[in-house]
Amino acid sequence: MTNTTSPADLADEIVQRLRTVVGPGRAHLHEPHFAGNERDYVLECIESTFISSVSPFVQRFEDLLREITGAEHAVAVVNGTAALHLSLVLAGVEPGDEVLMPSLSFVATANAAAHAGAVPHFVDVDTRTLGLDPMALREHLEQSTSRVDGVCVNQDTGRVIRAVVPMHTFGHAVQVDALVEVADDFGLVVVEDAAEALGTTYKGRHAGTFGALGTLSFNGNKTVTTGGGGAILTNDGALAARARHLSTTAKVPHRWAFVHDSVGWNYRMPGLNAALGCAQLEQLDGFVQRKRTLVDRYRSAFEGFSAGVIREEEPECHSNYWLQALILEPSAALHRDMILEEVNDAGLGVRPCWTLLHRLAPFSDAPRASTPVSESLERRIINLPSSVFLTPEPVG
Amino acid sequence: MTNTTSPADLADEIVQRLRTVVGPGRAHLHEPHFAGNERDYVLECIESTFISSVSPFVQRFEDLLREITGAEHAVAVVNGTAALHLSLVLAGVEPGDEVLMPSLSFVATANAAAHAGAVPHFVDVDTRTLGLDPMALREHLEQSTSRVDGVCVNQDTGRVIRAVVPMHTFGHAVQVDALVEVADDFGLVVVEDAAEALGTTYKGRHAGTFGALGTLSFNGNKTVTTGGGGAILTNDGALAARARHLSTTAKVPHRWAFVHDSVGWNYRMPGLNAALGCAQLEQLDGFVQRKRTLVDRYRSAFEGFSAGVIREEEPECHSNYWLQALILEPSAALHRDMILEEVNDAGLGVRPCWTLLHRLAPFSDAPRASTPVSESLERRIINLPSSVFLTPEPVG
Repeated sequence: MTNTTSPADLADEIVQRLRTVVGPGRAHLHEPHFAGNERDYVLECIESTFISSVSPFVQRFEDLLREITGAEHAVAVVNGTAALHLSLVLAGVEPGDEVLMPSLSFVATANAAAHAGAVPHFVDVDTRTLGLDPMALREHLEQSTSRVDGVCVNQDTGRVIRAVVPMHTFGHAVQVDALVEVADDFGLVVVEDAAEALGTTYKGRHAGTFGALGTLSFNGNKTVTTGGGGAILTNDGALAARARHLSTTAKVPHRWAFVHDSVGWNYRMPGLNAALGCAQLEQLDGFVQRKRTLVDRYRSAFEGFSAGVIREEEPECHSNYWLQALILEPSAALHRDMILEEVNDAGLGVRPCWTLLHRLAPFSDAPRASTPVSESLERRIINLPSSVFLTPEPVG
Repeated sequence: MTNTTSPADLADEIVQRLRTVVGPGRAHLHEPHFAGNERDYVLECIESTFISSVSPFVQRFEDLLREITGAEHAVAVVNGTAALHLSLVLAGVEPGDEVLMPSLSFVATANAAAHAGAVPHFVDVDTRTLGLDPMALREHLEQSTSRVDGVCVNQDTGRVIRAVVPMHTFGHAVQVDALVEVADDFGLVVVEDAAEALGTTYKGRHAGTFGALGTLSFNGNKTVTTGGGGAILTNDGALAARARHLSTTAKVPHRWAFVHDSVGWNYRMPGLNAALGCAQLEQLDGFVQRKRTLVDRYRSAFEGFSAGVIREEEPECHSNYWLQALILEPSAALHRDMILEEVNDAGLGVRPCWTLLHRLAPFSDAPRASTPVSESLERRIINLPSSVFLTPEPVG
């Protein structure tokens, strides 16, 4: 923002530039798009009467996920929070443990740790990836933890740090290979929160397949939706089998007997949702292509804009561009709330980033590293309308 | 069973008698029936693009539940386990507390307590209702608890007993008014597990509306299904508001800001599932009528059967007859497994009752009263094919 531009003019300029991309009328932040076999598959599912989690559509959905991500196993569950919670349990997280995660994330990341009885432990992000910073993580672990009986212990709290949850912010891949290296050095299990990153690769490998476990979300606002849904990815057959077992009330298979060998959950995805999801997954490539076209348009629209830049992928990442983002210059960021107000008033669905998790009441006492980059980004990020249908279907 | 009948003859006789009701061919234990507006509503939901929990179908589903049950509030969630878990949290159950429940129940009842960090505490059931016995409960509480600072404390474990969860077995109502009285006398909150009892009334009032909170399930095997789903019923507006808040990540309403004031869950039912559920609820009366016709037929079919009786409702209960049951005589019960084997081999889906919860590994150390009635019933119950479509649509 130049010194001569008023905040109102700035908001107005943003509206004008956005309008060149999204056209006139209302544009929400993210709406689903049902242009494939959604209706047919859902009707087929109802016709079969197998609408619960024993439906063949659940298997088909998981097969498609395996194909798309290259993960050896995919386990469909009710939502991304359930996927993360169960993954943390599978990672060996126990009540009273700590779980490392970025403070810049949706609350589900921290809730999942709480559901496992654990305490989130917040670390800073990298200004380029918007995700966990491997160097900052290593430094923090070197300074504040020690190895006791082979496990990583927080010197301040005395609690075991069991796992680390890198999150691929807005669909952009974090430097997950470097993070896995740090985790290995400190004896931590990596559970990737790839809720936003279906269709994203890092160094040619799909997000969510670097850690011991990875999780996806198919909430209504995601690139691909099942209404509500999630999945666990893993290359470890034993973990996958355990995920299936624990997510179906830990029932031991038997023709009729009800024997459950552990506390379990009712976490499997119903067939009705999987049927919708199968149709959506078939369109994923086109969806990602259109989202990548959208960022090209936003980039052009914001050429010469002095108060911020459109977020773009890092060289090693092929992003799904789930949510487009404008990163404001620090001086413009002072007026973020006014901008949000006026742009939303103009019928354009924009929103800030999440409130940093360590500033939410339920997690304000949680341990954390210093988080200057997260704090700067929190003030500067504005997410832009990102629906697939804002750009035309690719030709051919 | 007369002394002259062999176990194989007994199984054969049961098959013959069942065949007079269900006809030839395979009959599963319980299959859903989609004969109403299921297809239309689900397509309408997809067309609207509101397939997640913000869909108007969720509101409509809850309105229908309120109408049917007479509860002032209904909150639709992802499944019955989630409904129970959240209800226990709302009832004030805290980690380390105990929750009273029948040992004769599906594992979800105990899992929900474990998810809340609590320990199940098992009590015996009544031979007539198959649900918690109010007299046995009172006697057990008198003998094994004391009142400390206004709360009920287990003298053996020193833990607070916070709530009691009566379960309406197979859709038959438990003596819930008497149980509420006992609970009141001992300072316990009543959370009714009415997972199986949609459409059931006790003394003219719908199951699940006697306790502070009641829960329903719409799993694929229930009278009415949403694929996977559940609901919380309550007449307390504050509890309902809290249920909505906690089940939607405890997000404080705001035009854009992400503020969450508590650990929350992703527990709301997606619109896609609610759309199916609306169509199913519209047919509930007919479904219950047909299930009640089915028990008439089973009763006729098993007239003069010496080895067991068809389970019927108690005078004060109008049952939905979710699952039909044959209660074997003790001598015949010795051959239960052989009967199950042979009847299933004949293509008729029958099953025993659940393994008593206190005999499952995860709950074997849980506190409990003596449970002679539960133990007898566990050996004697055989559930019979119970699908709605086994009897014709009512005329007029």
